[in-house]
Amino acid sequence: MKLITAIIQPDRLDAVREALIKHEVFRITVSRCAGRGRAEEIDLYRGAEVAPDLIPKVRIDIACNEDFVEPAIEAICTAARHGDSGTIGDGKIMVTNLEQIVRIRTGERGSEAI
Amino acid sequence: MKLITAIIQPDRLDAVREALIKHEVFRITVSRCAGRGRAEEIDLYRGAEVAPDLIPKVRIDIACNEDFVEPAIEAICTAARHGDSGTIGDGKIMVTNLEQIVRIRTGERGSEAI
Amino acid sequence: MKLITAIIQPDRLDAVREALIKHEVFRITVSRCAGRGRAEEIDLYRGAEVAPDLIPKVRIDIACNEDFVEPAIEAICTAARHGDSGTIGDGKIMVTNLEQIVRIRTGERGSEAI
Repeated sequence: MKLITAIIQPDRLDAVREALIKHEVFRITVSRCAGRGRAEEIDLYRGAEVAPDLIPKVRIDIACNEDFVEPAIEAICTAARHGDSGTIGDGKIMVTNLEQIVRIRTGERGSEAI
Repeated sequence: MKLITAIIQPDRLDAVREALIKHEVFRITVSRCAGRGRAEEIDLYRGAEVAPDLIPKVRIDIACNEDFVEPAIEAICTAARHGDSGTIGDGKIMVTNLEQIVRIRTGERGSEAI
Repeated sequence: MKLITAIIQPDRLDAVREALIKHEVFRITVSRCAGRGRAEEIDLYRGAEVAPDLIPKVRIDIACNEDFVEPAIEAICTAARHGDSGTIGDGKIMVTNLEQIVRIRTGERGSEAI
């Protein structure tokens, strides 16, 4: 099982959710965060170096079986891009390994619990 | 070392925290998020398919040694369930491997730092 | 590739961001959370045991190549400490393995996408 974490622009959340549902990915967790990509380096403010402002982003976490990782990545990339060729700041997807997953209601574990 | 991440209903947070403390799990991180389980699929709104509303949830992250994983899962499952047999939406627990953990104050690493 | 997650005190966020930028770590994600370290155990309130209050913290997530892990840990520890020898509650850093990373705009994967 894998955990897919996507950091996207807030205005793409609905499109990404709809794209995931069309690929049968129903269970997601969404949270607000803020980020900065590489384009922005340190700013100068009255001669002092300061970290640049953070920009609001949305984080989506998806626990899924391995077969769903590639379709989910494709769905997120397509739905989260701004414009035909994407825009700087469109975001990032990370994949980590899930050792165990438990459904709290029933205590079921593993793929059954996803 | 393992990272346990639980997504639960907000009204069970206090009960889960107390259950964890009784199992000697003191250090936790809590954040707000929103989620949807499988019960809810795509909605129709004026004939158009739209993603359903997100429901507030709470995320708890716990870094712990391997011996604490099973007791912590048991404590969370029992305390996070609604009613005797649980309710849809009670949530999910995920376990990932932690390669390193560092206590910022002292620089200690590994099990000592948990 | 690794994911570094730091839980720090909110008043150290700017210092940590500036320290990371000086070590060429530009891309971070920041979110609000709340936590409790080990110092605080269960409280008594009118004779009943209750979980103690949660304290606001900030979570920073950094995806990076392996060469950046040690410099990033050093930078965070130094910048996040209160006072010369640190204070209880200064926080914690966790490192997990990243199996894949994708830049949404271009679809690039792996180290190229960091």
